[in-house]
Amino acid sequence: MLEQLDLTKSMSKEDYKKRMEVLEPELSRLQRECKAAKIPVIIVFEGFGAAGKGYQISRLIHALDPRGFYVHSIGPESTEEMMHPFLWRFWTKLPSTTQMAIFDRSWYRKVLVDRFDGITDEHRLITYYNEINSFERQLAADGNVIIKLFLCIDKKEQKKRFKRLADVQSSSWRVSEDDLRRNKEFDKYKTMNDEMLEYTDKAYAPWTIIESMDRSFATVKIYTAVIEALKAALRRKAEGSAADSDITTVPTPASVEYDDDVLRTSSLQKADLSLALEREEYRAELKRLQNRIADLHGEIYKRRIPVILGFEGWDAGGKGGAIKRLTEKMDPRGYRVHPTASPNDIEKVHHYLWRFWNNVPKDGHIAIFDRTWYGRVMVERIEGFCTREEWQRAYQEINEMEKQFVDHGAIVLKFWLQIDKDEQERRFNERMENPEKQWKITDEDWRNREKWDEYEKAVDEMLVRTSTMAAPWIIVEGNNKYYARIKVLQTVVDAMEKRLEQYTKG
Amino acid sequence: MLEQLDLTKSMSKEDYKKRMEVLEPELSRLQRECKAAKIPVIIVFEGFGAAGKGYQISRLIHALDPRGFYVHSIGPESTEEMMHPFLWRFWTKLPSTTQMAIFDRSWYRKVLVDRFDGITDEHRLITYYNEINSFERQLAADGNVIIKLFLCIDKKEQKKRFKRLADVQSSSWRVSEDDLRRNKEFDKYKTMNDEMLEYTDKAYAPWTIIESMDRSFATVKIYTAVIEALKAALRRKAEGSAADSDITTVPTPASVEYDDDVLRTSSLQKADLSLALEREEYRAELKRLQNRIADLHGEIYKRRIPVILGFEGWDAGGKGGAIKRLTEKMDPRGYRVHPTASPNDIEKVHHYLWRFWNNVPKDGHIAIFDRTWYGRVMVERIEGFCTREEWQRAYQEINEMEKQFVDHGAIVLKFWLQIDKDEQERRFNERMENPEKQWKITDEDWRNREKWDEYEKAVDEMLVRTSTMAAPWIIVEGNNKYYARIKVLQTVVDAMEKRLEQYTKG
Repeated sequence: MLEQLDLTKSMSKEDYKKRMEVLEPELSRLQRECKAAKIPVIIVFEGFGAAGKGYQISRLIHALDPRGFYVHSIGPESTEEMMHPFLWRFWTKLPSTTQMAIFDRSWYRKVLVDRFDGITDEHRLITYYNEINSFERQLAADGNVIIKLFLCIDKKEQKKRFKRLADVQSSSWRVSEDDLRRNKEFDKYKTMNDEMLEYTDKAYAPWTIIESMDRSFATVKIYTAVIEALKAALRRKAEGSAADSDITTVPTPASVEYDDDVLRTSSLQKADLSLALEREEYRAELKRLQNRIADLHGEIYKRRIPVILGFEGWDAGGKGGAIKRLTEKMDPRGYRVHPTASPNDIEKVHHYLWRFWNNVPKDGHIAIFDRTWYGRVMVERIEGFCTREEWQRAYQEINEMEKQFVDHGAIVLKFWLQIDKDEQERRFNERMENPEKQWKITDEDWRNREKWDEYEKAVDEMLVRTSTMAAPWIIVEGNNKYYARIKVLQTVVDAMEKRLEQYTKG
Repeated sequence: MLEQLDLTKSMSKEDYKKRMEVLEPELSRLQRECKAAKIPVIIVFEGFGAAGKGYQISRLIHALDPRGFYVHSIGPESTEEMMHPFLWRFWTKLPSTTQMAIFDRSWYRKVLVDRFDGITDEHRLITYYNEINSFERQLAADGNVIIKLFLCIDKKEQKKRFKRLADVQSSSWRVSEDDLRRNKEFDKYKTMNDEMLEYTDKAYAPWTIIESMDRSFATVKIYTAVIEALKAALRRKAEGSAADSDITTVPTPASVEYDDDVLRTSSLQKADLSLALEREEYRAELKRLQNRIADLHGEIYKRRIPVILGFEGWDAGGKGGAIKRLTEKMDPRGYRVHPTASPNDIEKVHHYLWRFWNNVPKDGHIAIFDRTWYGRVMVERIEGFCTREEWQRAYQEINEMEKQFVDHGAIVLKFWLQIDKDEQERRFNERMENPEKQWKITDEDWRNREKWDEYEKAVDEMLVRTSTMAAPWIIVEGNNKYYARIKVLQTVVDAMEKRLEQYTKG
């Protein structure tokens, strides 16, 4: 989930000021309304060290009536707390129906900092996750609004901030040895955070990712996230449903998705489409990689490792070309390409994932899907072929399916072939003009093109919500076909080699 | 869940015949209606060997149009199936929207027979459970009706049936070595089944327990369960909601609860209220147990084991007397009795479990609750102090809370003090007549008494749905106070000794 984020989002001073002038009084008003409506509110701040939790909490309470909230700073467990069930210290800190409780770190400490520091028993990790999910579900069902904010910066920025803090005498106490160790092993700690986000992002208590490289942007996004959540809670209360009735069926925005494009969590925009390869280099690399894949394919077969490769991307993004280069030197008995079109009559009377389950590769075989189950959250979403509830819950369903493949032992990779709008137009026109390629272009392609912005929004959401550690999305910068094909092949080679390592090692 | 069941339920020939004359054509009609409404139906038969799965399946399809269903017998995985993810062989067997799939054993094989036989990797058990729950949730969300029937007999009956089958040449092949081994280790296998029921009893795919000692009773209950489920599905479809919208919030009847008292799963009726102790024996036992408890209390404290004891039962059932005897020789610094009355003003503005979380004992201490969190599913349910949704989801919430206590290391026991209606009247009158006991009886007690039948139904449901392996209910036969008190003390002693064993052993 964190891998694909564009953290560089920022906001100009003017825009910030203008927005805050609206947001502050609005939050203030909503706090009063929630109190009157007897809605208990829980706000959780988690994220990387030096991402600005402290600053943002004080910035948030700025707008709040101090008689209506508590801030709880959650440190290591005391001896007394250790002598009770893990969640006891949080149950006893819960807000009443007229209060707001703000947590600076929270129950997530158990599966993050305390885990990293070796305090948490790894064997009990799943139990703690289950307890956390059940805790939040019980509170949400009882009418609590649970707002979970994850403040995100990158390793370099964190190091810079730690240094700045440490250099000033008055703030040097704020940087601990542990902080520095977590910076040094940033990737390991990030993986723990990523896993946590995957396991605990629920409809009744969704995470909102706060891109925190730019402080003003983060403040505005936090205010907006809190405001949207409170508004939704008031609406539900007015409608008489204590909590979301479809509370656990609809999985959730990893990030609150507003119509406001500025605040939207995105991945596509950061793709560097200028990346390119020269023809000579391409041919050499292609040869090398195709030979390597042929060898690896044999190993994969011998070790009985199933491989599932999904290809998605803009029309004319280069899926076909990449798949062709990928399979060119593979033994045809060991792989199959499944083109995914609209479902046929038999497929239509089954679950939308049924046809893909039917094509799960046998151990040792490779299944390549040209377009995939992700149609559900792209074309079906945009064209209205399924209901809002259906595509919303599909993210979780798809994540679960892919996890089952991975748990069974499969390598699962998903490629998004990214091109820009101009490049697509160029390719469309080329197809129109070339008699041999004309079959590849239809009126529908041009119609889809008109919905580019809608698709971009759906794709951004899909990438954030379904790029899991088990089955990552790879964004392939595709304006240059040579570059794109090599990246696809190299990624497949790397994944196979990594998996096979465990056999040579042990 | 299985521990507390009354399996002896039976049905007379006439009653059976009369009911089946109505049920068969009704099922037949509902099959057609579901087909027309495009509702896919999945019926799962699980349960103990020789409980009658085969017979009941053929009895069920009697009423069905053979063009509309398939029966799948699920044996051990084939080599081909082993080379795919676990659920692949079930995904490919799913019914279309106009079909019914009947499974004779199912995906539950993985966590039952195959687990018992050592084929299933114990380390992956939780993963399999998660996969099963996600599988069923995805199907239910897509409109599938999932009817899960658990056919239950006891060890003795099973042995008898195996013997009968083995003795006749034509049926002796039906009893395998494995069957006999599972009979021999019935309790171990039963525990696995019990755990399975606890983990997979979900609102979107509830289990119905079929008491199968009497074949006719079982047939009628199966027909009724299937019919009720199909009716509910048709109703939902007509209302336009693809599946239960509150699909995972409301946990479910372990058994379908009809208004029909005959079919209702029950526990209270089997309590043998004639059990009694003479005064002499009582006094000797009491002394012995109280001394033992005093010793154990010290050990418990030293080992830092928290103990949670809950007392529920009919008014005048003897809770107070039992608690008094239990604590008489305990060190008062090490235990606390929490009487539970109506919630006060502060408690009212918090989650209903909040006040009990606040009284979770510290490690090494004993907390005794005179009335408990179970008020939610008894008095609050019956008096309408909470909504139907609230008490329905409380079973799962309570199970989760108790599991957290146990996972933290606590001993959790729940006592139900059972007396019959006549005995209650006798005790009420005694209280009225005895000036020293008059304070113990109020008009409310008499009013509650009028709702005896309603309470009995609620208690029966509570006992089945919340008697977990981690935190069992103990039904205390209470007409004779001596017997009841000794049973309570002995149960506490046994539980403490069992827990302490692990320290002396290892």
